[in-house]
Order: sequence, then C-alpha cells, then structure tokens
Amino acid sequence: MNKTFINNLEEVELSEPIFIEALPGIGHVGKLVAEHLIHELGAVKFAELYSPAFPPQVFVDEEGLIEPMKNEFYYLKSQGEAEQDYIILVGNTQGLSPEGQYEICGTIIDFVHNFGVKNIYTLGGLGTGQPVDKPKVFGAATNIELAEMLKGHDVTLRTADGGIIGASGLILGLGMSKGMSGVCLMGETPGYFIDAEASKAVLTILQKILNVDVDIAKLEERAEETRKMISKAQQMEREMSDRMNIVQGEEDLRYIG
Amino acid sequence: MNKTFINNLEEVELSEPIFIEALPGIGHVGKLVAEHLIHELGAVKFAELYSPAFPPQVFVDEEGLIEPMKNEFYYLKSQGEAEQDYIILVGNTQGLSPEGQYEICGTIIDFVHNFGVKNIYTLGGLGTGQPVDKPKVFGAATNIELAEMLKGHDVTLRTADGGIIGASGLILGLGMSKGMSGVCLMGETPGYFIDAEASKAVLTILQKILNVDVDIAKLEERAEETRKMISKAQQMEREMSDRMNIVQGEEDLRYIG
Amino acid sequence: MNKTFINNLEEVELSEPIFIEALPGIGHVGKLVAEHLIHELGAVKFAELYSPAFPPQVFVDEEGLIEPMKNEFYYLKSQGEAEQDYIILVGNTQGLSPEGQYEICGTIIDFVHNFGVKNIYTLGGLGTGQPVDKPKVFGAATNIELAEMLKGHDVTLRTADGGIIGASGLILGLGMSKGMSGVCLMGETPGYFIDAEASKAVLTILQKILNVDVDIAKLEERAEETRKMISKAQQMEREMSDRMNIVQGEEDLRYIG
Amino acid sequence: MNKTFINNLEEVELSEPIFIEALPGIGHVGKLVAEHLIHELGAVKFAELYSPAFPPQVFVDEEGLIEPMKNEFYYLKSQGEAEQDYIILVGNTQGLSPEGQYEICGTIIDFVHNFGVKNIYTLGGLGTGQPVDKPKVFGAATNIELAEMLKGHDVTLRTADGGIIGASGLILGLGMSKGMSGVCLMGETPGYFIDAEASKAVLTILQKILNVDVDIAKLEERAEETRKMISKAQQMEREMSDRMNIVQGEEDLRYIG
Repeated sequence: MNKTFINNLEEVELSEPIFIEALPGIGHVGKLVAEHLIHELGAVKFAELYSPAFPPQVFVDEEGLIEPMKNEFYYLKSQGEAEQDYIILVGNTQGLSPEGQYEICGTIIDFVHNFGVKNIYTLGGLGTGQPVDKPKVFGAATNIELAEMLKGHDVTLRTADGGIIGASGLILGLGMSKGMSGVCLMGETPGYFIDAEASKAVLTILQKILNVDVDIAKLEERAEETRKMISKAQQMEREMSDRMNIVQGEEDLRYIG
Repeated sequence: MNKTFINNLEEVELSEPIFIEALPGIGHVGKLVAEHLIHELGAVKFAELYSPAFPPQVFVDEEGLIEPMKNEFYYLKSQGEAEQDYIILVGNTQGLSPEGQYEICGTIIDFVHNFGVKNIYTLGGLGTGQPVDKPKVFGAATNIELAEMLKGHDVTLRTADGGIIGASGLILGLGMSKGMSGVCLMGETPGYFIDAEASKAVLTILQKILNVDVDIAKLEERAEETRKMISKAQQMEREMSDRMNIVQGEEDLRYIG
Repeated sequence: MNKTFINNLEEVELSEPIFIEALPGIGHVGKLVAEHLIHELGAVKFAELYSPAFPPQVFVDEEGLIEPMKNEFYYLKSQGEAEQDYIILVGNTQGLSPEGQYEICGTIIDFVHNFGVKNIYTLGGLGTGQPVDKPKVFGAATNIELAEMLKGHDVTLRTADGGIIGASGLILGLGMSKGMSGVCLMGETPGYFIDAEASKAVLTILQKILNVDVDIAKLEERAEETRKMISKAQQMEREMSDRMNIVQGEEDLRYIG
Repeated sequence: MNKTFINNLEEVELSEPIFIEALPGIGHVGKLVAEHLIHELGAVKFAELYSPAFPPQVFVDEEGLIEPMKNEFYYLKSQGEAEQDYIILVGNTQGLSPEGQYEICGTIIDFVHNFGVKNIYTLGGLGTGQPVDKPKVFGAATNIELAEMLKGHDVTLRTADGGIIGASGLILGLGMSKGMSGVCLMGETPGYFIDAEASKAVLTILQKILNVDVDIAKLEERAEETRKMISKAQQMEREMSDRMNIVQGEEDLRYIG
C-alpha cells in the first residue's frame, strides 16, 4: 500500500451536496458534531479512505476487535425543509506528516469535487489551553459573502490571530483551487478533553446555517461514549510518540512488534 | 535502491499457509518465539525483504562480519498432526518512518497473499514498564470468532486500553483489506530487556492454538544468545538516535561516515 | 495534490529578466524589500506556485478570509534608465521539509530558466541574535566577478563563517547547475522581529546595483503593516510546531481538526 | 530537482577499480585520508553527484563564493607497484534523511558497479567521546577472508559492540547485494574535532593493504586547512538544526530566507 485510495461501498447520486469535514482534532469538537449529525439524521456510509500517511497502527475496540485506521464518507439525502444533499467526512485519524496531509486532503477534495460539491463546512476546535466558561464559535471563510453570513449567525471571525492548521484548513485551501467556497467553524475549547459543550455551540450555529433540525440534548450522551473511545486514541498517540522517540531520543527499543 | 523489494531464494508451493509475523519489537518477545519455532521445527528461509525504509546502516556480528538490514521469510511444511503449512517472518529491523512501515507491511501482505494466506498471527510484547510477576498473554482479533477462540485459550483480550502500533498491528490491518483474518498475541513484559519469560507464555498459547509441539525449555537458552545480539541492536538504535539528533538537536557532526 | 505546480495567470514575454527571490525568512528582510519593489514599481503578478511541501494549513487575514499557502511570481518590464526586465518571487511560506525545499526551488529554477533568466538576486537576513546598531549587508556570489562587484558596492563578503540555508541559498545552488549566476544579499538583523532597518540597508545597495530608483522612506510604513501580518505567521509556525510535537513529544492530541 | 543524479565530467575506462568511500563523518577521519590520497597521487575528478536528499543549502568559501552541496568521484589509474585502478568518493555532505541515504548510496553503488568495482573500502571514524591516546583502527568486513586480512594488518575487528551507521555502512550493505565485497576501516577518535591523528592511523594501514605509497607527514598540514573549512560545515549543521527546530521546537521563524 503506497498510495492513498478510496474504497467505494455504494454508488450514490447526489445533487450539489454540501461537504462537511470533521476529522478528529482538538477537543474532538468537530468529530462529535459530525457523528451526532450522522446518527440523528441517519446518514449512510458509502466510501472509506485509506492512506500510508496515516499512523502505522490499528485500533482495538472494546471487544478486542481490530479496526484499521481510516476516514469515512457518509451521505445524507435532502432533509425536510432543507432541499439539500450532504457528504459528511469522519474518521479515527488524520494524516501524520505534512506531505501526507496534502496527499489525503487532495484525494478528499478530488473525490467530493466529482459529486459536484461547491460548498464546504469544516468543523473543529480552537484550543485556549485554559477553562472556557461559555464557548464562543470562531470562524473563517473563503469569501466575503460567507464571512458576512457567519457574522449574521453570531460567529466570531478569527481575524488577525493566526491560521487554520490540519485538515480543517487544508481542505478549504485545496477546495478553493477547484472553485469551491466554504467556511471553518471552530468551537472554543480548553482542548485537553472531549468537549461536548464546544460541540453543542458549533452544532447550534451549524443547524441554523444549514436549516437542519437535530436533537442537541443527546449530544452530551454521545460525548460520554466518545470520551472512552478517545482516551484510547490518546494513549495510542502517546505510544506512537514513544516509538518515534526511539529514533529521535535516547530511549531503548520498545515498540510493540 | 529506491523501493522495497523481495528477493526470492527458493520457489515453494504452500497450501493455504498460516502467516506468523515476529519482527523485532518490545522485549523481543515475538522474535524469540519465532526464532525458536524456526529452529525447533526446521523451517527453511525462502525469501528476503530489503527496504530503503529500514535504518540506513548495517549490523556487524561477533566475527566482525557485516550483515545488511533485512526481513526474512521462512516456510514450514505440514507438521505431524497439524496438517498445516506456515510462513514465518523474522528480521533484524522494522521500518523507520511511518510511511516506510506502510510500504514494507504492504509488500509483505501482497507477498503472503500470493501464497494463499488466509490467517495471520502477529507476535509481540506489551510493555508494562515495570516488573512482571507471571506474564499474561494479551490479544486482539480481526473478528468475533477469533476473539472468542483467544478467550478459550486464556488470552486476555486487550479491550479499551489502546491499539497496536508497528508491524504487528499494521500487518493485520492491511491483511483485512485483502480478506485475511488474524490475531495479535502480546506477552506482558517490562519491555527493557530480552524477555524469555514473556516469550514462553506466548509460545505456550500459540502451540495450543496451532496444535504444534516444540520444546519450550530450550527457549531460555536461545534467549541468552539473543540477549547478546540484541544489546548490539540497541546500541545501534542509540547511535542512530544520536545521528538523527545532529539534524534535530544542537550537536556537532558525529555520525560514522 | 501530490506535486509542486505553477499556475500561470498571464502569458508574458520577458527579455533575459533578472530574477529576485525574497521568500519569508529571518527578520523578513528580503520579503520586505521585494514587496516594496513590487508596490513602488508596479510589478504585476503572473504566476502562483503551490506545493504539498508547504505547511499543511491556510492563513486567515484580518477580514477572516482564508488564503492558501503559496509563492507568487511578479514581473516588471524595463524601467527608466535600466533597460531590464525582472521576475520577483514572494510568498507567505517556504517549503517545510528538506526534500520539499529541493522540489520547490527546483521547480522555481526551471520556471525562470524558461524565461531566459541568467542572473539571480536572493534577498534575506543574517541573524545575529543580538541588537544591531547600523545593519551591514553581507553577500556571497556564484563567481569571482560578482563577488568583486559586491565589494565595490560596500557589501561585506560572507567569508569563512558558514553557508546559506533555505531558498536563498538553494535557488543559487540549483541555478548554477543551469548556468545561471547570482548573488545573495543578507541584511544584518537581530532576527526576532520584522526588521525594516535591515531591509532599508539591503534595498539601498540593491538599488545601486540594479540602477533602479524607489522611495526608501516608504519602506518603514510598509514594515509596520507587515509586522501585523507576520505576527500571525509566527503564531502559525508555533501551532505547527505544537502539532508536530504530538508525534514527536509527549503531548496530547491538540491540533485543530 | 526531484532525483539524485550523477553528472559525468569525463568518460573514463577503469579496470576493476577498487572503490574508496570517504564522505564527511565523525572526526572527518575518512574524508581527510581520501583528500590526502587524491592530492598526493593526483587523482582526477570525473563525476559529481547531486541529490534532493542533501541538506537544502549551499556552502560559501573563504572568497565569498557559493558552492553547491555535492559528492565527487575521482579516479586514479594504476600506480607504481600496485597495478590497480581506483575510484575515490569525497564530498561536502551526506544524505540527510534515512530514505535519502538509501537513494544516494544506491545511486553510488549502481554507478561504481558499472565500472566493474568488486572491492570496496569505506573509511570513517569511531567516536569514543573521550580523549584517545594512540588511536586504534577498527574494522569490519563482508566476508571471513577479508576479516582475516584485516586482522593481519593490525586492525581490531569491531565485534559485539554495534554496527556501522551512515554511508560507510550502507554502501557496503548495498554493495553486497551486487556481489561486491569490502571492508570498513574506522579510526578511533574523540569525534569532536578534525582528527589528523586518527586519519594517519587509518592511512598507515590502508597504505599497507593497498600497497600504495604516500607521504603521511603532509597529512597534518592538510588537517590544518580542513579544520578551517570544517568549522564552517559544523556551523551550517547547527544552523540547519536550528531551522529544523522551527518545525519541531518552540522557536520563532529564523531561517535565512
């Protein structure tokens, strides 16, 4: 396996779907929102992405079952009032190396471009590193109209204090080169735990923007489940770190072979 | 040399062989088990894998002889009661970079897939970082039937506390995409020395699962030899570390040129 | 997106243009000079370079608008007394990995070579790490005639104390293999802030060498604007650092996803 | 420039030449020996190797002149009593990344293989990290006959205490896969300065093995010159380190752009 590839599980036809990206990141804010949307609205998985740029490992779930590292595409056909199709991207990892991020995000953009995607929403967290009382939602946009729209929905534009790193930024940047526009929504979060509050704040605004209706109360329950799963992920990242340190630090051989 | 490649030493025909992976890792638990199986059952080396993703170095043995970095495939024709062929993978190194691990493990999976492998056993250690009284064997599986089978052999399923990093995990993950199933067996080990006790625990269970019979007592002797060889390997890893630090730290040029 | 590529915005014909490189670097000395030249002389953007070797992120400007990472080529037709065309390269980033630097700088050299470039000026800073009273301009050249020319313009040849790292060095090195010659001009700078003084020193000498006339007084104003923009860039580099540390250090998952 | 390549300066025919590798490394022991051989015996440069796996930088010499990073091949036609041709490899750098080392050393091996090389001598230092009274010469070989030959020339076989990292090891390892044999000679050195004493010890033995005659006294003079040149190289490595730390540590942007 030398290349990033997408495994199609189902042929689907979608009409100019909106693309929502929510790969795991700080506080798992975006991931929590997307998984809630998928569950509440009954989105259907139709494709999986695998990449040699993912961490070289597998997950083990609560039953001792092995799960490969992957990103997953779900679709959602037009819902109620909102005559709109969606593609939602979640997963258990992001790319590890900078070049890997470009390879993966470029593959994702090519894939959704083929479905006619014109608008992108990337969801994430904005880590403060300290307790957050009532999480704000920060945003940025690829054009001035979308930036104005965000302001109209009580999103604080992220001005003059940095950029957007990782898939949530890069997917918008690469999408621009294909003529797509979009926004990034980031829930304010301390960043060092699974943050359902930040996710609720993001979902509340996303709902209004997309004119979709989901039960936000259930998000807290889901956060609880996610917390358990994620503590595993963090441990794996740490083990990965340790392993990398074998090469870069002063430690003995101690990866699991 | 820009690509991972396999050098075939002998043409062999095998009948749906079981694939056992035991590349060097924590406590060298898996490696010790596999080398014992190879020696006791008379497995025959039939292929070698070389890769630019291995560390850029060579080993020097006790006679001052140079040995390239490599992985080695052995086969074993059906033994006594167990009407079963085997492919066993050992070596003096694993891939260095994450992408390198994918390239190497992908090449390995393609290779054994061509021999009709359907079942995989990956062997390793689970490092506790502290003394272990009577080592348990932990496991994980690619499906529920295999997970049940492990439980029936006194294997503790590794639930809710992380994943499997490196070749032992990745080979199972990549194998799944080719329709293979398998398990990972990990001997509990402090992790900072060659651990024959953990290897014995793994071998005891592996023997029962595979219905193979080997002399476990001799494993301790082999562990002794291995200890010597491995202390060299660890030193090389440290030298490698030092070299990498030239690029990443504040040290002067001091690699061996 | 797996390759570095150049997006042509306009077909231009240039007559043996001089190539000026000023990508962001220490004290942003070169960048400030080049942006001033572009603005004062009315240079026109005609091509953009994108690369998977750039940091995997986007910038967000003061209006909350997203800007992809890129390098930008401007041209300038012959000016007043100086019958000379120019290509000027600026951007918001350099390549991240060493191999990425080669890929990007190689692409740049191929591109400008097609326009008939024979002479290169790379502009940068030379960081002292301590306050600088009256910044000197240091230089190096690809041949003895150019080195003599630099001395004639009060440039201190950078002898016996090191080399030139990054795009400013590599572009000259790769250009030499295409038969191009050139010089690097480096303004002495503490290096830890946007240094308009060092930029003025470089511009003063560059003006004389190129026999071009621009208003140097305005450089200070521009430096002020740049300072704001750059403080963002530095923060992004730090966030990038933090993210890399996830893999290499002992920190938890906390990139923005 | 995306690939390692060799630029041929002269067509030469050589008769089963011996290949001597001496790229810069610990104490610059090998480099000093090779440069002395080249100078004293009048070897002629006939090819240069360039690689995107070299550090992304250029050298500046004492006249302020820029020199690209490169490896250089010299040939030497049969000398006096020793009816033997030679290829000698020197340079101002080694590959930076592990994969880069494989790419470069693989290219080197392919190149010298085409000239009919069957025997390789790689020269380096063995760093002790502490003062060395009378430097020993350590060695390792690709077969038992060469190991015996080394013992006959007072070389201490490097047994049971590690391997050989970098080009000096990898070139032998990759050469073995092409049917070449060879030895590595390593002069004992503290490792933190240019060590003419260690070089003299290596040269003394190499002379006897190769039955070549050069003036060893002059080596000390050459060491003096080299010391100056190398202090620059070390500074560049440090600057390179600093630059890498931008990505991996907590520092601000401060590479020379």
